[in-house]
Amino acid sequence: MDVSAPVILKHPLVIPHRILMGPGPSNSSPRVLHAVGQTVLGHMHPEVFQAMDEIKEGIRYVFQTNNELTLAVSGAGHAGMEAVLSNLLERGDKVLVAISGIWGNRAADMARRYGAVAKEILTETENNFSLAQLEHAIQKEKPKLLFIVQGDSSTGVYQPLEGLGDICHRYNCLLAVDTVASLGGVPFYADRWKIDAVYTGSQKVLGSPPGLSPISFSPRAQKVIFERKTPVAVFYWDMTILGQQWNCFNNVRPYHHTVCSNLIFGLREGLAIIAEEGLEHVIKRHQECAQRLYKGLGSLGLELLVEEEHKRLPTVTTIVVPKDVDWKEVVGYAMRTYSVEISGGLGPTVGKVFRIGLMGYNATPERVDLVLKVLKEALEYARSARTAKL
Amino acid sequence: MDVSAPVILKHPLVIPHRILMGPGPSNSSPRVLHAVGQTVLGHMHPEVFQAMDEIKEGIRYVFQTNNELTLAVSGAGHAGMEAVLSNLLERGDKVLVAISGIWGNRAADMARRYGAVAKEILTETENNFSLAQLEHAIQKEKPKLLFIVQGDSSTGVYQPLEGLGDICHRYNCLLAVDTVASLGGVPFYADRWKIDAVYTGSQKVLGSPPGLSPISFSPRAQKVIFERKTPVAVFYWDMTILGQQWNCFNNVRPYHHTVCSNLIFGLREGLAIIAEEGLEHVIKRHQECAQRLYKGLGSLGLELLVEEEHKRLPTVTTIVVPKDVDWKEVVGYAMRTYSVEISGGLGPTVGKVFRIGLMGYNATPERVDLVLKVLKEALEYARSARTAKL
Repeated sequence: MDVSAPVILKHPLVIPHRILMGPGPSNSSPRVLHAVGQTVLGHMHPEVFQAMDEIKEGIRYVFQTNNELTLAVSGAGHAGMEAVLSNLLERGDKVLVAISGIWGNRAADMARRYGAVAKEILTETENNFSLAQLEHAIQKEKPKLLFIVQGDSSTGVYQPLEGLGDICHRYNCLLAVDTVASLGGVPFYADRWKIDAVYTGSQKVLGSPPGLSPISFSPRAQKVIFERKTPVAVFYWDMTILGQQWNCFNNVRPYHHTVCSNLIFGLREGLAIIAEEGLEHVIKRHQECAQRLYKGLGSLGLELLVEEEHKRLPTVTTIVVPKDVDWKEVVGYAMRTYSVEISGGLGPTVGKVFRIGLMGYNATPERVDLVLKVLKEALEYARSARTAKL
Repeated sequence: MDVSAPVILKHPLVIPHRILMGPGPSNSSPRVLHAVGQTVLGHMHPEVFQAMDEIKEGIRYVFQTNNELTLAVSGAGHAGMEAVLSNLLERGDKVLVAISGIWGNRAADMARRYGAVAKEILTETENNFSLAQLEHAIQKEKPKLLFIVQGDSSTGVYQPLEGLGDICHRYNCLLAVDTVASLGGVPFYADRWKIDAVYTGSQKVLGSPPGLSPISFSPRAQKVIFERKTPVAVFYWDMTILGQQWNCFNNVRPYHHTVCSNLIFGLREGLAIIAEEGLEHVIKRHQECAQRLYKGLGSLGLELLVEEEHKRLPTVTTIVVPKDVDWKEVVGYAMRTYSVEISGGLGPTVGKVFRIGLMGYNATPERVDLVLKVLKEALEYARSARTAKL
């Protein structure tokens, strides 16, 4: 052998338990983890096909859609984003990207890589878009596609979508929505709101490990994909073939790629747990937990980045870092002392906010109370650390 | 709610145990499955970074390379294939694809989607390429990249690679190799053989679930990637950013996408098991198991598709379906009666062969004897079923 066996691999793997109350991933339940640790099965085995069929129904339920072309992409949320853009855009097509945090920037970057022309519309960090603003931009740019984020985990801002589908379609524009951080925490109705493409992540409210990205396309979007002049740029995300592997149409299941049976089992259980609780109750639970969190944060004298409550995303709360603390001290104390993850900012909010996530298995009053207790102590610690330094 | 909770999700998930002796995925060991079922951790947690660093070392070991740009792509083997092609090719570039089974066809399809010009060189189903054939084609086509498969799981053919790197470089051509089905079953020396890009799957000899694709680029390939005129077409596979997340260079670890901690833990353990056993021993074990299988198949009067033994891939054996049996009866009996997976053909070998995989956890004399016993019974069953029909 030219390269010898790495010594670094000879010590045992140690995985500590953590309570993940950042913007995601969130903790999976023991039931989901049990499923993920089951034996590997082949991607063409009947039990895997069955679980995939069940996942499709579960995804239709959480997206509130009857879309035929509904499945889970084998990749992180970013893979869902690229799958939407690579399937709907061809070289030279124009896309309008509504940028409210880092996700819009990424979408614009991806679209340009595919040779599309990406136009941007921006909003302030702590604000969402009005329908009038969006309509004005669509009218001006006449894009083939509008890309927008329902809940921006980098800012904690919630973007209402009702009425936007009608506006888009009036201008012959498709509507694509990122619901990675929002789905299950706020209402979402793909069909009722006339959304043409939507994706989310498995590791947030859906409560399973990262690695699968649920996705769904309206009949209008499906037609656009099947009538493309050029093939989808990425084989791995080509819905005309991937949709067959997931048995969305034609009733054939050709081999496209090797799905991960273990992640399939985990997502199936995550969706089953939501179906058992009921989506309305899931959303209500997240909203009640957010209310409890806001109240507790108020008692601690903390200020939220998003002032107007109706613009706040219940799943990710952005808290302004008080002037008298170093945010890293707070985050470090919470992790070190309680194994509780509270996050700093991301993109436009780096150094400016703490982010607390309430998602899936962690969206309970007990967890809210825990994170408030930990945050209180951590702030006290950071303040005394600062005083000691002065 | 417009769409009600699916009834299909209300029954319990039942996952049967299976012995996977097809061309992959193979069974993961209990140690790997235990790791996969551990708690979810964040993609920026120190333990995940540590496991990623250990995986990089493990991948360098199994590829026998010191390449800086070595990591695991978050996706199936096909994602590894697309990552190689999308990073090394720009629109208008020429790639020569050596097609010995379905994987070459897929690579050519992918390359064309990225706007590259894909030229093909073909071999017979049961044969590999000679270096002279390949050199002749490179001389004629003058491609930027040669893509070749070391072990074709659709045909069971092994492709020798020694000397090919020198030939490619003489014509200023990069060499990319698919080792999804072969790695760990036959020797592979990325540095010694001057391979510029290589990828494999996690679910074969490496013995972990599908969903990660180890990949490595030579300094020469890395330079090509960093000196591209246009950005890599796919953000998700852009090695200039993904390589940073995996801390391959610059010692920064920016957020690129959310890696799946659970698959990371599983692959780490799969690689640790190989490091503990020693790669030479792993390869020897696979080759000895293949010998035992060939001998047993001979005793059953069966003929192998690849007549010349040195052209056979030890990890996937292709057995000619005898004229007097229906292959589906054989495969069905093995699964139904023993929960043992024996596969039919794929692509050019559909209906013509059985495929038996000996990979990782399943490459043991006991498993060889089991699959021989099951195959013997299944053939007897299929022959009697046929006689009954006549």
